[in-house]
Amino acid sequence: MKYTSELIREAVEALSMLPGIGKKTAMRMVLFLAKQDDHKSLRLSQSITRMVEGLKECKVCYAYSDDELCGICSNPVRDQSTICVVESIRDLMAIEETQHYRGLYHVLGGLISPIEGLGPDQINIEGLLRRIQTSRPSELIMALRPSIEGDTTIYYISRQPGLEGIQLSQIARGISFGSDLEFADEFTLSRSLATRTPYSLKDKLPI
Amino acid sequence: MKYTSELIREAVEALSMLPGIGKKTAMRMVLFLAKQDDHKSLRLSQSITRMVEGLKECKVCYAYSDDELCGICSNPVRDQSTICVVESIRDLMAIEETQHYRGLYHVLGGLISPIEGLGPDQINIEGLLRRIQTSRPSELIMALRPSIEGDTTIYYISRQPGLEGIQLSQIARGISFGSDLEFADEFTLSRSLATRTPYSLKDKLPI
Repeated sequence: MKYTSELIREAVEALSMLPGIGKKTAMRMVLFLAKQDDHKSLRLSQSITRMVEGLKECKVCYAYSDDELCGICSNPVRDQSTICVVESIRDLMAIEETQHYRGLYHVLGGLISPIEGLGPDQINIEGLLRRIQTSRPSELIMALRPSIEGDTTIYYISRQPGLEGIQLSQIARGISFGSDLEFADEFTLSRSLATRTPYSLKDKLPI
Repeated sequence: MKYTSELIREAVEALSMLPGIGKKTAMRMVLFLAKQDDHKSLRLSQSITRMVEGLKECKVCYAYSDDELCGICSNPVRDQSTICVVESIRDLMAIEETQHYRGLYHVLGGLISPIEGLGPDQINIEGLLRRIQTSRPSELIMALRPSIEGDTTIYYISRQPGLEGIQLSQIARGISFGSDLEFADEFTLSRSLATRTPYSLKDKLPI
């Protein structure tokens, strides 16, 4: 692209490093920012600077946090006896969004994937095991995405010493609400048949 | 959305003010920035700050510029006798991209639109007329988008005093390369018939 301003060129190039943002979209953003009141546009750059410089990792669960301990780990109301193991902070947020889970989390920061060269040492399993030793939760919920990598990670964790007496569970797999059986893959469909649950009016989710 | 960090919440909200960016996309961007090396992410916020604080308008053509005069107006190699009038800096960039125009520009910053409450005084027509008085170009190319607003603007400018002896032209309207005649609107199709051009092998564009 041809720019009449070096400042615009730099801003476009910086913005187009963001995922899913090409040069044209970045240009639209830059022209939008140039048109806005200065203080509104500066609010954007300042909040990014503050975020980058101030962001920490919670030393217990590895979620992004403003302090040493994140808002969930430092909340005494949360159920301390359950740890939900997730791949990423985005999965954590998705579960929080449901408002149906009141326990703690542990963010692995990835799944074991030999293809991508990710071994158990590259993700936060060590910290999880240490944490289990000290806090002795009653249940460990593996909320990892159904995949070879997810299953490998669950298997690896399940084989570690020190998990005696702790209930290990994983999120249910089956057909999503609203989706068609005919389009489900065989693996999911056969599994949802095999792990069918007794029907009870009482259990019905309030949808 | 639920955030484990206030810093992340602020950055997400600032980014989601950008056009076409919702909360989910903003969140993906923020997590991307949080994962990057600090200096890469800070390059983004710093380039936005620099752009917002340093950006000027060229005092001759009203394009965004780093200095009093933009790179095009201050370039002695450009053909000073032709001024191409465009609606926005994006249109200017699109024309520059073609590499087929070597004259100067004038950015109106909008088109006359009574519906949107934009009159001749709200766009940079005054500056255009002043500029014409001093520089006396030989041609004024109206490269405005074919529309009621574009036509109104061209008509308004054409009626101003002081344009004697200056060739006023507008970009050709017709069927775009690669598009189907059957899907063209009647107005464009009938106009492209009425303003047909003599065929000559010599004139063929090198596509």
